[in-house]
Amino acid sequence: MPLSELELIERIGRASSAGASKLIATGIGDDCAVLRVPEGSELLVTTDFSLEGVHFRREWHPADCVGHRCLARGLSDIAAMGGEPVAAFLSLALPAELPQRWVDQFLKGMLSLAKRFGMSLAGGDTAQSPSGIMADISVAGMVPAGQAILRSGARPGDSIFVTGELGAAVAVLEQMLDNPERKFRPAAFPAHFYPEPQLAVARRLRQKKLASAMIDISDGLSTDLRHICESSGVGATLVEQAIPIARMGRHEVELRHALHGGDEYQLIFTVPAGKRLPQEIAGIPLTRIGYINEEEGIFIDHENGYRTELEAHGWQHFAGSKEKVRGKSAGQRKSALRRARRHEEDR
Amino acid sequence: MPLSELELIERIGRASSAGASKLIATGIGDDCAVLRVPEGSELLVTTDFSLEGVHFRREWHPADCVGHRCLARGLSDIAAMGGEPVAAFLSLALPAELPQRWVDQFLKGMLSLAKRFGMSLAGGDTAQSPSGIMADISVAGMVPAGQAILRSGARPGDSIFVTGELGAAVAVLEQMLDNPERKFRPAAFPAHFYPEPQLAVARRLRQKKLASAMIDISDGLSTDLRHICESSGVGATLVEQAIPIARMGRHEVELRHALHGGDEYQLIFTVPAGKRLPQEIAGIPLTRIGYINEEEGIFIDHENGYRTELEAHGWQHFAGSKEKVRGKSAGQRKSALRRARRHEEDR
Repeated sequence: MPLSELELIERIGRASSAGASKLIATGIGDDCAVLRVPEGSELLVTTDFSLEGVHFRREWHPADCVGHRCLARGLSDIAAMGGEPVAAFLSLALPAELPQRWVDQFLKGMLSLAKRFGMSLAGGDTAQSPSGIMADISVAGMVPAGQAILRSGARPGDSIFVTGELGAAVAVLEQMLDNPERKFRPAAFPAHFYPEPQLAVARRLRQKKLASAMIDISDGLSTDLRHICESSGVGATLVEQAIPIARMGRHEVELRHALHGGDEYQLIFTVPAGKRLPQEIAGIPLTRIGYINEEEGIFIDHENGYRTELEAHGWQHFAGSKEKVRGKSAGQRKSALRRARRHEEDR
Repeated sequence: MPLSELELIERIGRASSAGASKLIATGIGDDCAVLRVPEGSELLVTTDFSLEGVHFRREWHPADCVGHRCLARGLSDIAAMGGEPVAAFLSLALPAELPQRWVDQFLKGMLSLAKRFGMSLAGGDTAQSPSGIMADISVAGMVPAGQAILRSGARPGDSIFVTGELGAAVAVLEQMLDNPERKFRPAAFPAHFYPEPQLAVARRLRQKKLASAMIDISDGLSTDLRHICESSGVGATLVEQAIPIARMGRHEVELRHALHGGDEYQLIFTVPAGKRLPQEIAGIPLTRIGYINEEEGIFIDHENGYRTELEAHGWQHFAGSKEKVRGKSAGQRKSALRRARRHEEDR
């Protein structure tokens, strides 16, 4: 390990105490961090791994981008609840041969993202890793009591919206996998290298009580929309033409990346009928991509007029395996299609 | 990985929702857990790695004991602040070849410890590990506002106490390292295999306002007492004869294990002069082992009448390397000894 455990903790402590939130009563340097929770607030907690070879590769991702992405995963979970991030806790296991410069750049990437959102590192753990870099980030946030936007609030007739454009993060990743020798300039592909948690949009949705359910797209639209549907006990229909597909250079990325690509941290949220949503919040476009049904199953209306069931695929692991997270059997698929057709005929 | 990520999360969710605290408004199954924080409470957060080959070995430690130890590390940090644990968050990366039975036993060990303290798993993350089992546990706890027992409150003249007896955990570990072929029955060596976080003692110390500073012994008495001294800007003198040394079979373990062994989760705490402490709390003996000095440095009075400086050694890593955490140079040691002698003469 480049620095001893104590030195590393002290260095992180010095770096992070600069912009510390007033809600952090005691930060790094005791057995626990102590956080003040304002009256009428509830606490949010999320935790996410960033493992070398699983979530990033050292030869592809500069250290500052690994630090940024590591924290962005946690911040995006806080956004998906409509919350405000307060403090992060970093568990970091480093191989003995890792240069100190890597650690410095990693912390720089993480702390500069933290600073932009007025929060800081308040604790963590360090260890020597037997193989590869392992980071686990926990983020604590606050939300006014009872106002967290859960996955379970979607109701039939709600519209489904997404923030921003979809598919760029995984499209870049696929290019990297296809061209392992090519150098990808991080600044040219921010959706992949420096994904932006949508905290400002989430805050406004919560303040104006516009969203009935919300989730961030970490596993892909098809998988994450399914989480909303299962938690809410509803189904959904997407409109293919409406899906905002990201551009890379002069071309749109492929639809499958927009439908199944993850790791981009846009938000999916549902809006009850009758609520009026602005076209954008904080400069981020909001696009209606479909609606919630009473019947189970997720369907997609194609440009050619056909409706098919949308199976949940997702990049479960970064190593490049596209694993089907929760497919249905052919039988289930057929009966779902029958239900969908009946639904069409009833309309 | 034995189960898919989703199945594993669902299984943990089912197992842990049974004894869920009323403070957990939303547990596993959303982007974040939502915790209610009672008015007048502050929140405690701690995070600790348990890495295969670093903190445990699969051939030595049964899975349930790995789960127990993993959570015990976090609970002990909550105890060291005088807090009450509420919820744990588990990030778990598992190698593909790991039998499902291992995971089940791991969770059983963790959840039965959690249940005993009225808390539960409220979230986490899972991933496939490129090598070895990696667990990172975050524990959230509560403490009445302003009553967390920090490391920084020790004052000259305070007495230094420890709970229980010291040295057994590392003495067992050394025997394991010396006899790699021998089977150690976990039930026969609970101090190592099933260490007990001292939450009941900590609660009473906080309620009765008896402790001015506190820390748990995760790195060894010499290292952890140093943390108190550095945070409080004081020094300390220990009395060798007073240190409660654990027994293993018919013999006491070696003094060096009691002084420098870690991983046993007893508490060190300081008590202002004039406070009366019972001889035991919740069946755990409390022993006065020394006192706090104004002068920096940690010294030990030996049975033969000599006083020497106590260097901080500690088992930083489980793999067996005894690494000096923060030794002093010969020069520093000498001047510290001079100060100590002056102090003796002044008395």
